[in-house]
Amino acid sequence: MNVFVIGIGLIGGSMVLDIKSKYPEATIYGIDTNENHLSKALELNVIDQKATFSDLEKADIVIVSIPVDVQLTEMPKVLDAVSDDTLVFDVGSTKEDICLAVKDHPKRRNYLAMHPIAGTEFSGPTAAHLGLFSEKTNIICEVEKTAFKLQEKALGIFAKLGMRIRYMDPKSHDKHIAYMSHLSHISSFMLGKTVIEKEKNERDIFDMAGSGFASTVRLAKSSPAMWAPIFEQNKTNVIKTLEEYINNLQQFKELMTQNDFTEIYNEMESTNHIKQILNGIK
Amino acid sequence: MNVFVIGIGLIGGSMVLDIKSKYPEATIYGIDTNENHLSKALELNVIDQKATFSDLEKADIVIVSIPVDVQLTEMPKVLDAVSDDTLVFDVGSTKEDICLAVKDHPKRRNYLAMHPIAGTEFSGPTAAHLGLFSEKTNIICEVEKTAFKLQEKALGIFAKLGMRIRYMDPKSHDKHIAYMSHLSHISSFMLGKTVIEKEKNERDIFDMAGSGFASTVRLAKSSPAMWAPIFEQNKTNVIKTLEEYINNLQQFKELMTQNDFTEIYNEMESTNHIKQILNGIK
Repeated sequence: MNVFVIGIGLIGGSMVLDIKSKYPEATIYGIDTNENHLSKALELNVIDQKATFSDLEKADIVIVSIPVDVQLTEMPKVLDAVSDDTLVFDVGSTKEDICLAVKDHPKRRNYLAMHPIAGTEFSGPTAAHLGLFSEKTNIICEVEKTAFKLQEKALGIFAKLGMRIRYMDPKSHDKHIAYMSHLSHISSFMLGKTVIEKEKNERDIFDMAGSGFASTVRLAKSSPAMWAPIFEQNKTNVIKTLEEYINNLQQFKELMTQNDFTEIYNEMESTNHIKQILNGIK
Repeated sequence: MNVFVIGIGLIGGSMVLDIKSKYPEATIYGIDTNENHLSKALELNVIDQKATFSDLEKADIVIVSIPVDVQLTEMPKVLDAVSDDTLVFDVGSTKEDICLAVKDHPKRRNYLAMHPIAGTEFSGPTAAHLGLFSEKTNIICEVEKTAFKLQEKALGIFAKLGMRIRYMDPKSHDKHIAYMSHLSHISSFMLGKTVIEKEKNERDIFDMAGSGFASTVRLAKSSPAMWAPIFEQNKTNVIKTLEEYINNLQQFKELMTQNDFTEIYNEMESTNHIKQILNGIK
């Protein structure tokens, strides 16, 4: 089995590590515009061989794990290059634009649009690790547009990786993921920014940072190269979540200004309900 | 050594567990207005005996770990009840008001104002656990107002618990902790609120929550009974941090509206600097 990974970072790298561990006979080929990442991936045995687009014709599976803007131009080229039996899937955090970009491609049936909800705040091939996808949700969009045999092949792999599958249309995916993921990244980045701006001249103050702050600001370590294009592609949905978030913060501030700490207590108590919601997230 | 803990939750409970493990000869007495918490603490061996304020005269050490509003009225009563050689300290997340409340108390020298930067999002005696304070920062305020011998006694205990000590005046503490802790709690609570409001009728959507969302919203599980009084006491500082945070979010939204994703990239990249700041936080 020839598995190609285009873009060998946290997600693509971790996925081929998992695949190699479950399918030891697989050969992992790596393609990356960043020559350092490619060499590092080879050195770390994340991939078995370096490759280029001209090798894609021998691929059984192609994992496209590159920024969501680049994906729009590269995915059609990948589909052009593969054989009729190749399964191609992406792992991007937005789904509407990529589905549109390949809508009329003659090899649309070779492509499976998906978004595994997994990751850390780190990036690059050194961040890749085994088991990242175990018990994680994998959202598949427009499954009906992928060839039956390739759906089956993909689901077999995802089952071995321990993922639970959810099906969703691309528009709904992008709308809901704005709340469940994209907004968290902005809230975290802006929290980091607010604290850094204020405290940049007071280095000792960072001794006051505890695990609560670290947890809330963790996503502010994320890669701008990955995230700026996500915000751009999901602009309308993200702006809407941001407006609602800002309104809620304004309202909290108003309650404080009015000394209505009873209502602040009530707000927090009803939000404690998040405990139940988060049950089951690893 | 007779150690009293008033308010046996996450912080007070964890502290006496640590003290008992380092000083096995210590007897731990518990005082709590919540009879269930008191019984639970006894059952879990967090305390050795239930006690009341009338027992405080035999205390060598008193840990006051109750909400910061209640503390203002209870701390003078605790100081009234203890002997001349008793060390009394609190663990509250605000320091200015409590220092003012005991400023002129005849036993001011028995009191050490402090704030250990440690905790989890859980509360109550079942949340207490060993080792919570290891390698954590403990901020001590107005140390010069505590008797030399009692300072020495306190520092000996904190060293055994593995804490690193920082000295700060109460005003500075409250100003900086608003950025490093209080604001994170509000950003997290309001993130939780925004998502719950939006998605309350779509239970399946929570399958889309990943570890990033869980991390950012973790503090929204925190106890309103503990946090409403903190926000109230630190109102002026917290409102200021909230205004700066809201401005940064507004500005991010403006950049998105104007399609300035280059500047959004730059903002995120400069905030990535938080990595260095967080190094060393467990």
